[in-house]
Amino acid sequence: MTGLMFLRDKADVEDLESKVTDKNYFMFRHKEKTSRPINTDLFDRSVDDSAVLRILRGDVDGIAFAELQKLLYTSAMSYCATTDLTKTNDKKSPGTFFEIFTGHLVAGQFGVNPERHTEVPSLDIQNTLPTDYVFDLGPGCNRIHLPIKTSTRERVVQVWAHQRVLDGLHGTNRFKGLLVAMTETNKQNDSSVVEVCLPGQWAVYQMYIAQMHRIYYLDVPQKYSVLNNTYPFIHVSPFAAFFGESESIAKASPLA
Amino acid sequence: MTGLMFLRDKADVEDLESKVTDKNYFMFRHKEKTSRPINTDLFDRSVDDSAVLRILRGDVDGIAFAELQKLLYTSAMSYCATTDLTKTNDKKSPGTFFEIFTGHLVAGQFGVNPERHTEVPSLDIQNTLPTDYVFDLGPGCNRIHLPIKTSTRERVVQVWAHQRVLDGLHGTNRFKGLLVAMTETNKQNDSSVVEVCLPGQWAVYQMYIAQMHRIYYLDVPQKYSVLNNTYPFIHVSPFAAFFGESESIAKASPLA
Repeated sequence: MTGLMFLRDKADVEDLESKVTDKNYFMFRHKEKTSRPINTDLFDRSVDDSAVLRILRGDVDGIAFAELQKLLYTSAMSYCATTDLTKTNDKKSPGTFFEIFTGHLVAGQFGVNPERHTEVPSLDIQNTLPTDYVFDLGPGCNRIHLPIKTSTRERVVQVWAHQRVLDGLHGTNRFKGLLVAMTETNKQNDSSVVEVCLPGQWAVYQMYIAQMHRIYYLDVPQKYSVLNNTYPFIHVSPFAAFFGESESIAKASPLA
Repeated sequence: MTGLMFLRDKADVEDLESKVTDKNYFMFRHKEKTSRPINTDLFDRSVDDSAVLRILRGDVDGIAFAELQKLLYTSAMSYCATTDLTKTNDKKSPGTFFEIFTGHLVAGQFGVNPERHTEVPSLDIQNTLPTDYVFDLGPGCNRIHLPIKTSTRERVVQVWAHQRVLDGLHGTNRFKGLLVAMTETNKQNDSSVVEVCLPGQWAVYQMYIAQMHRIYYLDVPQKYSVLNNTYPFIHVSPFAAFFGESESIAKASPLA
């Protein structure tokens, strides 16, 4: 957690005006550079290395849900905020870090390493297709499709489209789609913070492109939480919830 | 065509090493800045304003196919190359220009202005969904879905995904999907030119997400041309071809 050490020791903290109900945000500053918005309730400056190493080992038993949420958020956000303060226009490293971080945690829970391609069981075209992380959990288990994004914006339709391709190649409901995203916060020009969400479009994608099984966030956007309670019922929850339900997600079983 | 005047009068020309069989590319240079690769056979420095005004009016009768290809390519590429030479990191203006340029030409052929949203004929959710350009050609005609991109890269799955949403909302084959793109050229670090193409992925999208009716390019990539001749038979052709077939595309008729 050298990132968190840097933020604790070298960076200043500035509160931001939150336009998101019931959430508060601040940012780090180091000289002229400022970080992305950080959720005050989810970022825990006192996190120590041993706690982070525990979750990296997948050893989450006995960690309270709220504590696990903070550990996950603080670990991922420390890297991203440090990059914001130390690099110029580096949008790629935070995405790559978050993909590896999340892929590692999910692989730990499933006990299987992911692959980045799928076979194309077709009559006369190519044999493999590049994909996001996919997991083969073995006989009697679902397969997993795991797209990972720091934020989704308008690119999110890719997630449903790739799920549709997997459904088409291998049959509907053969792959369970789990999207893991960090946040949808946006720092506006006046330094206020909003969440950029398109819940109506997500509903249309879930109805007409494919069905995602879970959407996990480190900082769940308010407007996507609502999707849990209304048709077509997209299951949106904190990523911490995955650790308690990974076994039931893995198990192939009849639809409820 | 102030862009073309600028390029003719102020910019230098440098040949590029083409790694694309049977195509030659050059670039413009102005001081330290260089343009994207430009197809030597399709860019016509002698194009004059009156010819461009003719195609902007949709008055293409009597213009030979090869001539129309050059007029379209030169008009669009002049703006993009000028932006490359006069702006820093402006990727948005060329895209916006090409969208308006193409949308205007297609609207001229169909005699109808496009819209940027579609109704959602659903039981209990929102009434409209934002889209790429869509055209309502009236009774007895197809509707048109017109995504427009300077190049497609990995974002192209969006095109098939949005076609799938329209198929889901309004029925398969109600909207004919026409993608218009400029090129897939990429200038590498050694100043050679390649075309970045993923024909195997396009085939999978056409098989499992939705069916695009036409893919038009100003500079048709070689590897996508091949898709015309092999299952699932994606129809890829020069954008100039649209002007000769817009009437048959508009007319609702049984599938062949």
